[in-house]
Amino acid sequence: MSQQPLDTIIIGAGTAGLAALREVRQRTDRYLIVNEGPWGTTCARVGCMPSKTLIEAANAFHRRHTFEAFGLRGASGLTADIPAVLQRVRALRDQFVAGALQATGDLGKACLSGRATVLNPHTVDIDGIPYTTRSIIIATGSRPSLPDEWLAFGDRMLTTDTLFEQPTLGPRIAVIGLGAIGVEISQALARLGLQVAAFTSGHTLAGLSDPALNDVLTALLKQEMVLHTGAKAELREVPGGIEVCSGTHRVVVDQVIAAMGRVPNIEHLGLDTLGVPLDSRGMPAVDTQTQQIGNLPVFLAGDANAHATVLHETADEGHIAGMNALAAVPARFRRRTPLSIVFADPNIAIVGQRMASLDPRHTATGTAGFENQGRARTAQHNHGRLCVYADKTTGCLLGAELCAPQGEHTAHLLALAVQQQMTVHDLLGMPFYHPTLEEGLRTALRDAARQLPHARTSDLATCMAIGVPALD
Amino acid sequence: MSQQPLDTIIIGAGTAGLAALREVRQRTDRYLIVNEGPWGTTCARVGCMPSKTLIEAANAFHRRHTFEAFGLRGASGLTADIPAVLQRVRALRDQFVAGALQATGDLGKACLSGRATVLNPHTVDIDGIPYTTRSIIIATGSRPSLPDEWLAFGDRMLTTDTLFEQPTLGPRIAVIGLGAIGVEISQALARLGLQVAAFTSGHTLAGLSDPALNDVLTALLKQEMVLHTGAKAELREVPGGIEVCSGTHRVVVDQVIAAMGRVPNIEHLGLDTLGVPLDSRGMPAVDTQTQQIGNLPVFLAGDANAHATVLHETADEGHIAGMNALAAVPARFRRRTPLSIVFADPNIAIVGQRMASLDPRHTATGTAGFENQGRARTAQHNHGRLCVYADKTTGCLLGAELCAPQGEHTAHLLALAVQQQMTVHDLLGMPFYHPTLEEGLRTALRDAARQLPHARTSDLATCMAIGVPALD
Repeated sequence: MSQQPLDTIIIGAGTAGLAALREVRQRTDRYLIVNEGPWGTTCARVGCMPSKTLIEAANAFHRRHTFEAFGLRGASGLTADIPAVLQRVRALRDQFVAGALQATGDLGKACLSGRATVLNPHTVDIDGIPYTTRSIIIATGSRPSLPDEWLAFGDRMLTTDTLFEQPTLGPRIAVIGLGAIGVEISQALARLGLQVAAFTSGHTLAGLSDPALNDVLTALLKQEMVLHTGAKAELREVPGGIEVCSGTHRVVVDQVIAAMGRVPNIEHLGLDTLGVPLDSRGMPAVDTQTQQIGNLPVFLAGDANAHATVLHETADEGHIAGMNALAAVPARFRRRTPLSIVFADPNIAIVGQRMASLDPRHTATGTAGFENQGRARTAQHNHGRLCVYADKTTGCLLGAELCAPQGEHTAHLLALAVQQQMTVHDLLGMPFYHPTLEEGLRTALRDAARQLPHARTSDLATCMAIGVPALD
Repeated sequence: MSQQPLDTIIIGAGTAGLAALREVRQRTDRYLIVNEGPWGTTCARVGCMPSKTLIEAANAFHRRHTFEAFGLRGASGLTADIPAVLQRVRALRDQFVAGALQATGDLGKACLSGRATVLNPHTVDIDGIPYTTRSIIIATGSRPSLPDEWLAFGDRMLTTDTLFEQPTLGPRIAVIGLGAIGVEISQALARLGLQVAAFTSGHTLAGLSDPALNDVLTALLKQEMVLHTGAKAELREVPGGIEVCSGTHRVVVDQVIAAMGRVPNIEHLGLDTLGVPLDSRGMPAVDTQTQQIGNLPVFLAGDANAHATVLHETADEGHIAGMNALAAVPARFRRRTPLSIVFADPNIAIVGQRMASLDPRHTATGTAGFENQGRARTAQHNHGRLCVYADKTTGCLLGAELCAPQGEHTAHLLALAVQQQMTVHDLLGMPFYHPTLEEGLRTALRDAARQLPHARTSDLATCMAIGVPALD
């Protein structure tokens, strides 16, 4: 053990903690990283990776419905072996977790399992032993939200923490909550042939704020599952299963998956000893460009600060916290353009400013549907819709919402455009290869362009000024 | 019929001709559009659309090889009904062609079927009748290259003009030529269960100039078909079929598909009457920023000028020609960043400057493989490789070549970046969502970034200068 005071103590070895660790190790060997509970990131253990592995199997199976139209025979003989599907999810998950564990495998005594509590901005208690330190990085992550009273349903009440551990599932499943995780999981399980009933007390799905787009998604999901919106789901034990009641609807299921969001792991951390104001959740204010709490040498990164609970953001936050915890003066970083993706099919994404945050009087909205989009039709992926939002005066692209085939890729393109403050016309000047789904994006961009001042007669820019000589 | 001289005559009603027509119609009603042979674009009739429809069916069927690993049972009972697959290709093709025909359906006497010959820069002969005109737009397209001596094989000698018309195919097929079309078609037919042998006299496939990438693609295709490179293919009639000999290799097949490129339809057009020099192919010099031939009021657009024979470029050329044919002074247009995509799986693409055109002393090459890429592994799409090329001094992204899963989308992102003259660091500043295939691109960008001067410690830009106040 290095002499105290240490340079920093990292609490939590998830994505944010490990990103911080990478920076810390380059700068000092006077540090500790401490983790309570299972090692391995939320992403690799119970989040992004196992869910995507499940979704890929589900989408591969769902594709059978296109086979007859393609001229492929025998689809009716295909079956999903749910235990085998889950087995593959766990096998791949284990490999991803092993990758995460490599980050701490060689740390020796700098790496501790235990419960850490902040005693003051320069002291952390780890399982009863106080350690003094120049700085603290808190990256304790989050956990699925689950009402206490639902614990009574025992192992039939699942969250993403337990879902992938099941030897099998269903056949009757209720999913409560239709944010990103609820939409992904309910669609994947429905596509694997389970009887899925999904519930949300609100009306918007997967975080979409564009009502027209939300209607498109709702209609698409209703083709695959029973879906009830707008009423709280109540659960009770009945003969033969768990009854879910929502408004006038009721369904009896074998298992319930609670997908009602995630709560930051900040209780019992001792944040109240820092001498800064805490909000009603017990959360201090955090500078999102430095990850610093007030002027303290204490940094709060990743899901634990509930700011932007998606992996690339939590990794950035750990990275920033790791650099700043050891810096004489914390550096300020410009955060990336907001991007969130829900891996439903069609993909759902929100880029930059969402519709609800924009003033409709100053916003041109360009839309395109994919029902008749050429490439989408060849692939039988012709579902969904895409909306781009641009400043009516400048033509600058401000954001986009979409529920569109291969939309995860379109969303990256749009994120780059928003980040670079491009205009609709800048984007229309790029090549759109034929036949691609990007041509659907172009349709939406042209729709927006028609609403902008000084509409051009061509996507192409004239180049008189450049004066390249004629070829002859 | 309008009084002569007309304002313009458009020769050819394919993609370029129709793009020109759209501009012409907005500016005058004193025009003719004349087309020889079948109406409907190459793209819709025999090109992009039927090939993509075939490929989507083939890839859907090929996906069955992943089913057992996903936990899906019964894949061995799937069969491809080749006649039904081709039937769907034609049915969808007919709908796409009908869409193209709408562009000329209401033209009345302004629209003629016949053979047009240029008599001089102001006169066009159409089936023996001379028409005087202020300008001419030539957009006569291209046709598959086919050695005369191979015509002896009759209806067993196919090109893309006849392939999709077949009631069935094979079971033994040879594909001669492995450019874009040869690679797409040979892989699609192999994936539909036909026995495919593919030949190219060269060593590079699908236009790739990066040797490492070409090796990756060659190895991947060899898993799906018999592939011979580096020797000319000779054909002869033998009992039981057509024998293809290439070097020491021989194979007997039922049908041969010639995929040896396309030749512009410029013979017999009367280009020799224009009074400008013609090259050995009979092709005049064309200004690619105006589509003008010399200083004549004659414009050559689309496949017919053999400049950039991909749809989005031919459409641009028709668009430019249509505007310029009626302009007092032709406007110069900046052409788009080069982008070519081959819809093999993994997708193949070339963006901006290809490797062979770059000076290795001044170029940083960043590469990433997809074998261990996280998202690609969840989807069992973990094949291929991606290379980005950047200026070693400025960090500017110059181009990319790739053979990567969902690479058509990555290629669009890279095309936008090249078009906007972004640096590797600009691109690294965008959000890369997790888990996506775009993270593979990030790996290649980081690889390039390490070779650039002033390597940064962070993808994120610091923003001291912006001075956003801390949240506390």
